[in-house]
Amino acid sequence: MYIFSDKVKDMKPSAIREIFKSMNDPDMISLAAGNPSAESFPYDKMASISQEIFEQTPVLALQYSITEGYPKLISHVTNRLKNKFNIDTENDEIIITSGGQQGIDLSAKVLCNEGDTVICEKPSFIGALNAFRSYNTKLVGINIDSDGINIEELEDALKTTPNVKLIYVIPTFQNPTGICMSLDKRKKVLELAEKYNVMILEDNPYGELRFDGEDISTIKSFDKSGRVIYCSTFSKILSAGMRVGYVCGPKEIIQKIVVVKQVNDVHTNIFFQILCSRFMNEYDIDQHIIGIKQIYRRKCGLMLSELDKHLSDMLDYTRPQGGLFLWATAKNGESGIEIAKRAAENKVAVVPGNTFLTNVNEFCPSFRLNYSTPSDEQIIRGIERLEKTLRTK
Amino acid sequence: MYIFSDKVKDMKPSAIREIFKSMNDPDMISLAAGNPSAESFPYDKMASISQEIFEQTPVLALQYSITEGYPKLISHVTNRLKNKFNIDTENDEIIITSGGQQGIDLSAKVLCNEGDTVICEKPSFIGALNAFRSYNTKLVGINIDSDGINIEELEDALKTTPNVKLIYVIPTFQNPTGICMSLDKRKKVLELAEKYNVMILEDNPYGELRFDGEDISTIKSFDKSGRVIYCSTFSKILSAGMRVGYVCGPKEIIQKIVVVKQVNDVHTNIFFQILCSRFMNEYDIDQHIIGIKQIYRRKCGLMLSELDKHLSDMLDYTRPQGGLFLWATAKNGESGIEIAKRAAENKVAVVPGNTFLTNVNEFCPSFRLNYSTPSDEQIIRGIERLEKTLRTK
Repeated sequence: MYIFSDKVKDMKPSAIREIFKSMNDPDMISLAAGNPSAESFPYDKMASISQEIFEQTPVLALQYSITEGYPKLISHVTNRLKNKFNIDTENDEIIITSGGQQGIDLSAKVLCNEGDTVICEKPSFIGALNAFRSYNTKLVGINIDSDGINIEELEDALKTTPNVKLIYVIPTFQNPTGICMSLDKRKKVLELAEKYNVMILEDNPYGELRFDGEDISTIKSFDKSGRVIYCSTFSKILSAGMRVGYVCGPKEIIQKIVVVKQVNDVHTNIFFQILCSRFMNEYDIDQHIIGIKQIYRRKCGLMLSELDKHLSDMLDYTRPQGGLFLWATAKNGESGIEIAKRAAENKVAVVPGNTFLTNVNEFCPSFRLNYSTPSDEQIIRGIERLEKTLRTK
Repeated sequence: MYIFSDKVKDMKPSAIREIFKSMNDPDMISLAAGNPSAESFPYDKMASISQEIFEQTPVLALQYSITEGYPKLISHVTNRLKNKFNIDTENDEIIITSGGQQGIDLSAKVLCNEGDTVICEKPSFIGALNAFRSYNTKLVGINIDSDGINIEELEDALKTTPNVKLIYVIPTFQNPTGICMSLDKRKKVLELAEKYNVMILEDNPYGELRFDGEDISTIKSFDKSGRVIYCSTFSKILSAGMRVGYVCGPKEIIQKIVVVKQVNDVHTNIFFQILCSRFMNEYDIDQHIIGIKQIYRRKCGLMLSELDKHLSDMLDYTRPQGGLFLWATAKNGESGIEIAKRAAENKVAVVPGNTFLTNVNEFCPSFRLNYSTPSDEQIIRGIERLEKTLRTK
């Protein structure tokens, strides 16, 4: 009955979300989530800071605030980007956003007209793909190798596609594959962006979560020409439900994002901006993150050893060194949708790989597994059920 | 250097915001704000609920949540809309948003293509006008009489303007004028929306703040045909900084707003959604609101009596029965911009009226005064300074 705008009329709720809705069955084991482990949030410290805020700065924490974000939190983020991620470009600014998602959404809004193209990894984060779709952009997916995006394909797309405005990449522990882009490829992506005069949106929600191997520098850290908009979040290290993230980018771009954020939600919940800031002041966030990494190292290791034990003959899978996900592909070429359906019948939920493609109707023999949300027991039983699924047909 | 999308390229930060930035002078008295009174937030009760949340449901409050909003808060809002605002249409749904602003933004996003028209009151809320502008819509402003929007002008605009998608109105204690639309006009606006097949966006952030006179039913309460999207917020009754609002509208529309909210910020800060819900459970929110109304009745009365004493020969002004603002017009026809500039020299800040017009370059001999934010002392001295401004030239 209602006529929706062209940009949203074909949009549907996320398929992952729909899978969750069908999961009322208490016996279902979900390896389909994208949540950080509930063990990873520092509840007691946050409770104690929360009390301090009500005692010390109640008006500041409950009254309207400025769109750019809480200045002390911006300072903390600035320092962390510099010290931990080697991001220190004097022409950049930071805006605090309502989660990393808002940074992606508003970056697309300020840069893309309807019909413009966004180049993404294939597969990629569905929340970003849908944000781009919500501005009626065209999406072009570039295949990922074991060391990240295929550079030849990327250059080919840049050469042949009109009106490319943005290259969207998650170089570190990519969602959904868990793959890290090599240093060399990061540099090449930046070179190509410069050569073809497009912007890069570097999404780094998992960059703090390396539990194995050596850090690889962010693309943003090489950015001398103001090509890279860098998004991240506190969702995976302090709390996902508070919705606090940030964007670091060229001043002119951040100032435009400020203008559209002002009409989007005025500012991000200021109470939790203060809470994040105080946490970084009063506690050792690196120590806290070491604890999170221990959890994920254990959970990822457990899932991999269960896969190795039960399914190495039937599945290929990535071996992530951080983040929340791994990516499995059926050696027999069965479709990820079929596997996910049959897995659900065996009471284990996985996300079919086609969900993460720019064209969801394309065939995809893969599926995503999450190890951060399930308990150790659930990981063990979940992989057993997956084996049962794959061995019986 | 950067090329922005057509929809945002001409957008500037809000003029009001820029006024604030220039107000570093500690001697400046601001009658230019739009903040609820800092006295109006229930700090102690919120602090105590906050502790309960950390003790009782910490994971729920810090983990990812669903886009639609916290179900218990949705129930409270549903009941309040029914009991207090007579809104009870069985085909409607509610979504919790990150402040009322997000409800306005996403309603425009799902309904308007670039080039479509939104009809607004003239003057109107700048945050809404800029949200509509950020989707590259055309704005048509309809003059307001003392009893609300001019119905003849509205019908004329509906008759002659192509692709009108939305009529945006703030029927109750309108920002910036403080005017209430009469019951009769509310019904006529709905009739016209039905006749010309457009949607109404009814924004009601101040509906709880009537300190004088009798409530007038919301347009939404007459809506039998699914024509009205109704936005409101907890910003003026519990806390503005937490960013919790809601939209009530036809199911199909709310479901589309859910899809775009999901890619905008995933969900609204869940901790404060729980806090609002618990507040309404554990405390008497009506009693709390009675306290807020007392503050605003006193402050508005004080501002009016000071205006009556000092400036009744030079200014016409509205006499609001609720809300945060009144609207003053120079009898000598001096421009609001000039008055605001000269007032700033005398260390009192007001917002020039043209700011609230669809065409900000149009001449406007009015300005907005806010009585919720300044102290009683500041109101008295502020009006004195305004008198000095207007009497010396």
